[in-house]
Amino acid sequence: MGFRIEKDAIGEREIPENQYFGINTKRAQENFKLGVKSVNLKLIHEIALIKKASALVNQRLKKLPADKAKAIIKACDEVIDGKLDQEFDLSAFQGGAGTSTNMNVNEVVANRAIEILGGKKGNYELVHPLNDVNMSQSTNDVYPTALRIAAIHLLRALSYSLADLQEALQLKENEFSDVLKLGRTELMDALPMMMGQEFGAYAKSIERDRWRVYKGEERLRQINLGGTAIGTGLNASWDYIFGITDTIQELTGLGLARSDFPMDITQNNDVFVEVSGLLKACSTNLLKISNDLRLLASGPKGGLGEIELPQMQAGSTLMPGKVNPVIAEMIGQVAMRVMANDYAITMAASAGQLELNSFMPLIAECLLESLELLNQGVIIFREKCILGIKANKDKCRETLETSAVMAAALVHHIGYDQAACFAGKALRENKSIREVMQEETTFPNSRIDEILNPLGITKPGIPGKQGL
Amino acid sequence: MGFRIEKDAIGEREIPENQYFGINTKRAQENFKLGVKSVNLKLIHEIALIKKASALVNQRLKKLPADKAKAIIKACDEVIDGKLDQEFDLSAFQGGAGTSTNMNVNEVVANRAIEILGGKKGNYELVHPLNDVNMSQSTNDVYPTALRIAAIHLLRALSYSLADLQEALQLKENEFSDVLKLGRTELMDALPMMMGQEFGAYAKSIERDRWRVYKGEERLRQINLGGTAIGTGLNASWDYIFGITDTIQELTGLGLARSDFPMDITQNNDVFVEVSGLLKACSTNLLKISNDLRLLASGPKGGLGEIELPQMQAGSTLMPGKVNPVIAEMIGQVAMRVMANDYAITMAASAGQLELNSFMPLIAECLLESLELLNQGVIIFREKCILGIKANKDKCRETLETSAVMAAALVHHIGYDQAACFAGKALRENKSIREVMQEETTFPNSRIDEILNPLGITKPGIPGKQGL
Amino acid sequence: MGFRIEKDAIGEREIPENQYFGINTKRAQENFKLGVKSVNLKLIHEIALIKKASALVNQRLKKLPADKAKAIIKACDEVIDGKLDQEFDLSAFQGGAGTSTNMNVNEVVANRAIEILGGKKGNYELVHPLNDVNMSQSTNDVYPTALRIAAIHLLRALSYSLADLQEALQLKENEFSDVLKLGRTELMDALPMMMGQEFGAYAKSIERDRWRVYKGEERLRQINLGGTAIGTGLNASWDYIFGITDTIQELTGLGLARSDFPMDITQNNDVFVEVSGLLKACSTNLLKISNDLRLLASGPKGGLGEIELPQMQAGSTLMPGKVNPVIAEMIGQVAMRVMANDYAITMAASAGQLELNSFMPLIAECLLESLELLNQGVIIFREKCILGIKANKDKCRETLETSAVMAAALVHHIGYDQAACFAGKALRENKSIREVMQEETTFPNSRIDEILNPLGITKPGIPGKQGL
Amino acid sequence: MGFRIEKDAIGEREIPENQYFGINTKRAQENFKLGVKSVNLKLIHEIALIKKASALVNQRLKKLPADKAKAIIKACDEVIDGKLDQEFDLSAFQGGAGTSTNMNVNEVVANRAIEILGGKKGNYELVHPLNDVNMSQSTNDVYPTALRIAAIHLLRALSYSLADLQEALQLKENEFSDVLKLGRTELMDALPMMMGQEFGAYAKSIERDRWRVYKGEERLRQINLGGTAIGTGLNASWDYIFGITDTIQELTGLGLARSDFPMDITQNNDVFVEVSGLLKACSTNLLKISNDLRLLASGPKGGLGEIELPQMQAGSTLMPGKVNPVIAEMIGQVAMRVMANDYAITMAASAGQLELNSFMPLIAECLLESLELLNQGVIIFREKCILGIKANKDKCRETLETSAVMAAALVHHIGYDQAACFAGKALRENKSIREVMQEETTFPNSRIDEILNPLGITKPGIPGKQGL
Repeated sequence: MGFRIEKDAIGEREIPENQYFGINTKRAQENFKLGVKSVNLKLIHEIALIKKASALVNQRLKKLPADKAKAIIKACDEVIDGKLDQEFDLSAFQGGAGTSTNMNVNEVVANRAIEILGGKKGNYELVHPLNDVNMSQSTNDVYPTALRIAAIHLLRALSYSLADLQEALQLKENEFSDVLKLGRTELMDALPMMMGQEFGAYAKSIERDRWRVYKGEERLRQINLGGTAIGTGLNASWDYIFGITDTIQELTGLGLARSDFPMDITQNNDVFVEVSGLLKACSTNLLKISNDLRLLASGPKGGLGEIELPQMQAGSTLMPGKVNPVIAEMIGQVAMRVMANDYAITMAASAGQLELNSFMPLIAECLLESLELLNQGVIIFREKCILGIKANKDKCRETLETSAVMAAALVHHIGYDQAACFAGKALRENKSIREVMQEETTFPNSRIDEILNPLGITKPGIPGKQGL
Repeated sequence: MGFRIEKDAIGEREIPENQYFGINTKRAQENFKLGVKSVNLKLIHEIALIKKASALVNQRLKKLPADKAKAIIKACDEVIDGKLDQEFDLSAFQGGAGTSTNMNVNEVVANRAIEILGGKKGNYELVHPLNDVNMSQSTNDVYPTALRIAAIHLLRALSYSLADLQEALQLKENEFSDVLKLGRTELMDALPMMMGQEFGAYAKSIERDRWRVYKGEERLRQINLGGTAIGTGLNASWDYIFGITDTIQELTGLGLARSDFPMDITQNNDVFVEVSGLLKACSTNLLKISNDLRLLASGPKGGLGEIELPQMQAGSTLMPGKVNPVIAEMIGQVAMRVMANDYAITMAASAGQLELNSFMPLIAECLLESLELLNQGVIIFREKCILGIKANKDKCRETLETSAVMAAALVHHIGYDQAACFAGKALRENKSIREVMQEETTFPNSRIDEILNPLGITKPGIPGKQGL
Repeated sequence: MGFRIEKDAIGEREIPENQYFGINTKRAQENFKLGVKSVNLKLIHEIALIKKASALVNQRLKKLPADKAKAIIKACDEVIDGKLDQEFDLSAFQGGAGTSTNMNVNEVVANRAIEILGGKKGNYELVHPLNDVNMSQSTNDVYPTALRIAAIHLLRALSYSLADLQEALQLKENEFSDVLKLGRTELMDALPMMMGQEFGAYAKSIERDRWRVYKGEERLRQINLGGTAIGTGLNASWDYIFGITDTIQELTGLGLARSDFPMDITQNNDVFVEVSGLLKACSTNLLKISNDLRLLASGPKGGLGEIELPQMQAGSTLMPGKVNPVIAEMIGQVAMRVMANDYAITMAASAGQLELNSFMPLIAECLLESLELLNQGVIIFREKCILGIKANKDKCRETLETSAVMAAALVHHIGYDQAACFAGKALRENKSIREVMQEETTFPNSRIDEILNPLGITKPGIPGKQGL
Repeated sequence: MGFRIEKDAIGEREIPENQYFGINTKRAQENFKLGVKSVNLKLIHEIALIKKASALVNQRLKKLPADKAKAIIKACDEVIDGKLDQEFDLSAFQGGAGTSTNMNVNEVVANRAIEILGGKKGNYELVHPLNDVNMSQSTNDVYPTALRIAAIHLLRALSYSLADLQEALQLKENEFSDVLKLGRTELMDALPMMMGQEFGAYAKSIERDRWRVYKGEERLRQINLGGTAIGTGLNASWDYIFGITDTIQELTGLGLARSDFPMDITQNNDVFVEVSGLLKACSTNLLKISNDLRLLASGPKGGLGEIELPQMQAGSTLMPGKVNPVIAEMIGQVAMRVMANDYAITMAASAGQLELNSFMPLIAECLLESLELLNQGVIIFREKCILGIKANKDKCRETLETSAVMAAALVHHIGYDQAACFAGKALRENKSIREVMQEETTFPNSRIDEILNPLGITKPGIPGKQGL
């Protein structure tokens, strides 16, 4: 395989003939050879989309000849479609505030456009990475805009996944609406409740997450294209500025808007911290729910054993028949990772200085990772865990009856002190409250049924007292 | 000083005669003797407000005799007004999900009400902490509601403080609207800009914070009063539930609403994580701005020296005349502390189990600390730092002129290559771009003035090109 | 009450006549009026100790007259003994890298020394806060040294508390050494074990913490006294430098050593991050243990119910007889707070710039809070929780026997497949493995006893196989 | 391409004929399809090493026939050498505490060994993934041991990289030992110093990191092989336990030791938190140093401009000739990511429950990522940034002389007040302290030279005063 020689301000470099990237990308590969994580491809694809939009506008403004524009646009489409993904292998933690990633796209698009025009890769007189592909742009307006677009698409996907999860939890709320069970506070026996209510409470929290994530899009809609290097817009004409905003709206179908103060958007990253904070709030719910499910499914004999999670894979090699709550454990780890990413995003965003934040690549990487992990994790969690949950009705009833918490239903009928006394007797003698009532009171069974009626006990009001 | 004896399920305890708190508080003081931080008094005051509202409703429902209710209400008012603050000295990191704090209020209100009725402290037959003061309530509905109310008041205050800060930054935006200076990306000389724009970008970020914080209130409006221990509402009548919500609305003047699923609110704390996340986003802006100000004010000779912060106190004892950016450093630390509190809130919220979160006290403490710190910090930052900032116009102009960044304005007139060449010459020979232009081009001075016109350079478009 | 007038470079200020602090403190009180948290008094006391040591050295070097030195030393002793604590009410989050706290001590010591010499507060010709009390010192060497000393004392105390906790856990290890119970992995029934082993594992983790904390002291022993403002030692004589190190060693009894490169110590705070990291590691153990205990004690009927925690206070007002694991919840929150403080310390330490870290006050506050919380928390945890734990032997045995995990002991005797088969039958028919063996095999009871012998099952080797 | 059918307790599954992994891996791929990050290959390789050691021991103990053992060992060697890396593509955030990763290795090794023995993949009668490859092992002792070994190797590598970085910084300390410059505290002009001292302070902090990382290995040396599922060692003979420890020592060459309480090691992960905490401490230094370098290199005209970082790649496309501190920005982001990983590790470690921590995979992933990032980052930082740093001596001298900080050298000669007065005059009239002295005092130039002698000013003592 041959090489071509490329030059930059620093010197020369051999580039494998078959590669579309050029010398800037090559140097960045060497400079940031961390070997751990490459730039998120979704970010790459959106940068290419912006290049395409720019070419469209600049062609319209007669700054780019039609054939060149056409070739650039075709090359961009190929990048957008993922056909050139293997050309993008830069570290996600690169320095330079994203310049290398922007140059990577510029070079790949330029060389592919050159080929489309019948030239040989590296002949930048045909299509120039900077003068043509990057025309009217700066990394500092392209990069954050691409991140916003990528994030909005993922937020929408996540919003749908969360809606599905909410619905699945509500299915379970209905399915278990008559499964009477023990409610616990601080892990101690507390009051009776329906298992459906348990899932209803989970569904409500996910409903908030769905709403949060849905609204998160609004935070990201302002873009700074046309602001160029520091947001003042030096060397970008107003024609371009209005044109690029309209065109990017059309291409993405998103309600993006030109910031009226692009210098702000260029240097400040608080909106990413805010959005990551929403994902973190969602993660606390996912972690709480998955921990609860693991607890409720613990056993089969030595735990709460109130539910069964679907068995997705063999558990242990040493302990035959053991089934582990692997999906719940997975989503728990996803939640923790999202929280950790939030930490990184917060640190990076607050470390911006003056007209730019040098740490945009870390923000981009962590935010997109959080979004992808959550979205995929939530889909799996619903499908492979929530939907298959079964209630152990008998175990629930038995646990509730051996507990003394039904005594709380008696307070209004026999007084707090006697209720407490009955509770004590039940615990000591391993009897149910019903049995104690039968022994200790003259209430007919029908009255006892009224008072201990599950529907009454798990709703507001005084159990067994009509009209309340 | 004498003692009175109080009893509980565990045994007896001496309580100093002059103290209003009782045995439950006493035990909690001993159990949680961490010696570091007491429960936030704002939380105490709002719990007392809920006790007052409950007494009003229960009196109306004939569950509490008028004289007793009146005494309780008067006692609550005294707690609300801070007259009994010294009775509340429990650790902020107490176990029990807030039960001890709730009992502390119950006991203090009861004993004060007993006194008001002419009784002696400890004579709970007159007014009982649980049966009367805590009637129809549970810690698990009272505590999170009080936290919501306290947080909403502080959010509003913070929103106003941020509005004032935004306004102050805009004042500076106007004041410095014609101070031409160097813009920097990645700390390197980049492009010309106006100092007013710098402050305008800060103002925009604070405008978002103000909006965020203002909207944060919406997250906290749903309350679970009447849900009692686990949100099912056992033993709370519908009359009470509707009455307490209305009454608490009246007393607070806030748009609080009854949750349609109080079990959710009782166990899930994601809204506090969300609100804390908003405060964290605000903190990244405050940290970024304060770091920028410290950088811009660095010197007087060995730093950027573009602005002067007001001198608030003597700097060093070893280095005479040294002035330090102490207010900016303070707000930076406030920001970091808020971020750390967010960590604690996130951990605690995600550690909830089943029908309750045992770690509510940590959530409450950290959220209220963040709100108080931010509110007070922002007020000070505006008053003692932002408003007094002065621009060093001469230094700004001089720095800009010795730099080569004005070369960017020439690109459209003499081409990129020659502009780069002029930039190089300027740096090498320590000349301004204006001087190099005069030496190397035949442009008349009037044309040079047009091209290097500050207003043109710091706005979108091609400098010196009319109609663009 | 009257006022005295004090002056500084900025102007004049009224100081209440009875206050020992002066104008610098006054201004700092106003500048940092955050209203949340005051400087930790342990830090104040250690700063006073350094002032005392300095006075001793400077008297010896004839730079301070004997009577003045004596008065200063006496005043320092009073601060060290806490007699003037009410004079120190500055915000913990002050700007200025600790200068205000240092000046607060300088002023209080000076004015008290003036009084001792028969003068009137404010007459700094008698004793000057800077020239005399602060002689040969700079905030930048005094403050971090005081923090090191305060931290070392607290580390030692914590090391002892942890040793006591370890011992208490080992007591329980012995006490429960024959309580056979179910072991769980991923919350699912796994293998038999002794409850003593459970506590033994906790004790081992605390043993590491004790060692960690003990070794943490080594990280803090290097001090930079004599380095003055940036560590170069300008204006501090070698006589002073050697003298102050010796004297501070004598006064504290600690193995402190002069850094051979004080500029490093002056600007770098990684040792505090490291020590805080050790506290965080300890916190993960405390959180894990306390969560386990809450889980093992859950119930009494609807949880694992294997142990009982001592009842420290009444649990619920709505649910009679409810006992909550309040001490375990408290230590859990302490652990989370320490983790959050670690976040703040890390951020602050990494935000240092050039020759100083402006955010030392945040580091100091958070580190000392973590140490105090942990120390006090661990003492309470041992005393009010661990020592009183009781095992529910019957419940443990019953749970183990209804589970099928004893089947694992059969693998080597009847093969994996048949063991799995027996396990299935036991679960289906609610029988113990012993019962299934009796039904399905011809093993005599004595042989069954050998195989299911608890001691064999919970130790390495093949149960029932001698010599292994 | 054909498929083979594999079965497990849940059912059947098609596996592509050419794949070595089996049904357990297949299910895990589907269950944890998060699409973001695969298990770290270093972990895979060390698990294979443990399989190899186990085969050696079990062959010696006659539990595994020689030919089978030989085939297993050969297959393990291929995995260790990375020849089968493409068979390992499970999500790093999998549930099951690492069981799937362990099974992945078991299956790949078994199928490869089957091939070696002349069989067809899937014919587990020849070599069984569990009975043979996993013999005497459990995920719960294999997985954490493999993580320890992988981490120790990376810690050693990092320790060497840090030693090289320290050496590079010391080279610069020497190179710049006579470059007099301004020292700054709180970013304000403070005192004179040598640039060598600046780098010396950096070197000292990295020296501590090197030591920390080196000592970190000790924390990880205890292993729990032979403890099987919960650390009790059920079904593992003492012969195996001693044998496996010796063999793993031989194969790794590391000073690993059998834990005397494997149940502790099996469930507690505080040592990973501790080691991660050391990496975090190191990261604060790297972040601080890289921020300082960016600050010192800021400019070329509008910043401090005291040093030049090597130019590694073209900076901006809009601003010609702009050079950015990209390597410093990269290492800064590495540092932040390590801090974020520490967050995740802390959360995961503290979320362990009873006999196991379900979140081991997150701990493993984050710890190994931190180690790899730091190691590679530090190598690049040294090579492409530190070694090429140049000092701008003239700029340093000029800045120092226009500042007034040399006035501090005069305090002992002309008194504090007059020194302050000279400093004021110097600043007002833009003169050097030398010039002011010449104008205002009668000191001969030789005396002035003595007092302002750079060597004197930047070392302890009174400048110009002999014998001090």
